[in-house]
Amino acid sequence: MPENKKKFIAVIGGSDPTSKEAKAAEKVGRELARHGAILICGGLGGVMEAACRGAGAEGGTTIGILPGENRRAANPYVQIPIATSIGYARNAAVVKSAQAIIAIDGSYGTLTEIGYALQSGIPVIGLNTWAISRNGKQDSSIIPAESPSQAVEMALELAVD
Amino acid sequence: MPENKKKFIAVIGGSDPTSKEAKAAEKVGRELARHGAILICGGLGGVMEAACRGAGAEGGTTIGILPGENRRAANPYVQIPIATSIGYARNAAVVKSAQAIIAIDGSYGTLTEIGYALQSGIPVIGLNTWAISRNGKQDSSIIPAESPSQAVEMALELAVD
Amino acid sequence: MPENKKKFIAVIGGSDPTSKEAKAAEKVGRELARHGAILICGGLGGVMEAACRGAGAEGGTTIGILPGENRRAANPYVQIPIATSIGYARNAAVVKSAQAIIAIDGSYGTLTEIGYALQSGIPVIGLNTWAISRNGKQDSSIIPAESPSQAVEMALELAVD
Amino acid sequence: MPENKKKFIAVIGGSDPTSKEAKAAEKVGRELARHGAILICGGLGGVMEAACRGAGAEGGTTIGILPGENRRAANPYVQIPIATSIGYARNAAVVKSAQAIIAIDGSYGTLTEIGYALQSGIPVIGLNTWAISRNGKQDSSIIPAESPSQAVEMALELAVD
Repeated sequence: MPENKKKFIAVIGGSDPTSKEAKAAEKVGRELARHGAILICGGLGGVMEAACRGAGAEGGTTIGILPGENRRAANPYVQIPIATSIGYARNAAVVKSAQAIIAIDGSYGTLTEIGYALQSGIPVIGLNTWAISRNGKQDSSIIPAESPSQAVEMALELAVD
Repeated sequence: MPENKKKFIAVIGGSDPTSKEAKAAEKVGRELARHGAILICGGLGGVMEAACRGAGAEGGTTIGILPGENRRAANPYVQIPIATSIGYARNAAVVKSAQAIIAIDGSYGTLTEIGYALQSGIPVIGLNTWAISRNGKQDSSIIPAESPSQAVEMALELAVD
Repeated sequence: MPENKKKFIAVIGGSDPTSKEAKAAEKVGRELARHGAILICGGLGGVMEAACRGAGAEGGTTIGILPGENRRAANPYVQIPIATSIGYARNAAVVKSAQAIIAIDGSYGTLTEIGYALQSGIPVIGLNTWAISRNGKQDSSIIPAESPSQAVEMALELAVD
Repeated sequence: MPENKKKFIAVIGGSDPTSKEAKAAEKVGRELARHGAILICGGLGGVMEAACRGAGAEGGTTIGILPGENRRAANPYVQIPIATSIGYARNAAVVKSAQAIIAIDGSYGTLTEIGYALQSGIPVIGLNTWAISRNGKQDSSIIPAESPSQAVEMALELAVD
């Protein structure tokens, strides 16, 4: 299958996950690669690195969209580093380059990425991540998954064109 | 007082507020100007325009940090339009240029701005806006205000340097 | 005159000018302020700081569109610091927020700003700055001025809406 | 060879090249792919599309770093589209993600990319492109090549880490 027919899925999450979350991220990366999807992430450590390690172990392609201007800042499992040089405004680029998002745990940066995805109508699957409510009403746009495998299945099924 | 000694406060919120929210935004703008603060916003319509209208009516200074490359896209109450040309990645610039944030209602774009502010340690005061919880635990970083006046008081008091 | 009816003129140039160039930048800042124009710049040192110092001495308004996320990184003569957080991609924002550009000497960053201005049809006035030719043919889009006063006159006259 | 050990080379140039320039771009793309390099470009038409077409014909990998937020705006020969959403500020990302640059003909956007590359110490090889002089002195940082093959050889040889 040519690269541009493959599904591009972003995995987002913090740089300081618990070991349980890191394992979930690695599993997500593995499953994405097994299904022939291309993994997009922010290119740094934590959830991003664990997901890339998993994808790489299964021969998948990994893209790291970095905040800085040094391509060598990517984690060692990123095959295609993009040095945006635009700081955390790059969170918009991580998300908008993907057809669906899997959010694992996550920090405030992850929250910005969730906002950008929902703004663009890109599906967000959540694994132990943020929940949001507006003016007292629950917003159920973040679709909860119960396991890494289910998160990947849902992301591939809901991926927009 | 020289401009750069004044407090810079951002007002964020959606482009399609209810009339009650628009009134709250206008009141926030008025109160900021009365206290000698400079209003920063995203420069477009809705909450942004209402806040600028209020600030302008009290002789305050209004800055609009626009997503596009056309400075004339600013609402008519923006005195200082900045045409960033970087799209919704400009949400990072709106927030990081401010010393405190007042979020009124808000859309997913507002959620990205809240995330960027909390990431940088910039206080966020909320008026009928997003609430967030992570992995089942409420995150109380968004400080609720009960009125526009109270929101302004809290923003000025909590403003970081 | 309300702020948004004033002319917004950007002064661009390197952070390490000769003393002659710094004097020219200060003079350009003074003249812009005397003519009621608002000065936009990249907010840092060198040409940017000298121009702001000149404008401030005449009571003019100065805007610094910074690369980083710290508003306190602005030079002391910037009255309105904008912390874009997008690094040198902010060069696009400096230029596109202005109605005309005055380039003084300048580094490679200045060259990117000249390119962005010409791309958007924003007039560029040059004082001892870059000259460009394409495929062997001189490109005369950078309009040379012979003095700071003349540069300011030309910028105000050629400013686009 | 793993992807991240390959050389990443950007090809920059306008969206409206002459047929001679388009042929040169296609040849550059072919040669890069034959040498196992990964092609980075701005993802749109003209020089970018011709270079991607050439690289694709030789089985090379092509990355398109797009200005908009729609990944489908990429030319059909882009295998890995990145939707930065930051407009022409993305020119910084195109350049800083590469280890060397080949500039073919080019518009004012190309001039911004040359400026960003030289600012970061990334070598720029030119084929019938911009020449620059500062304050009356020729700046010879843009290294002229006499043919597409020579441009590729020089880019691969001069590529920084």
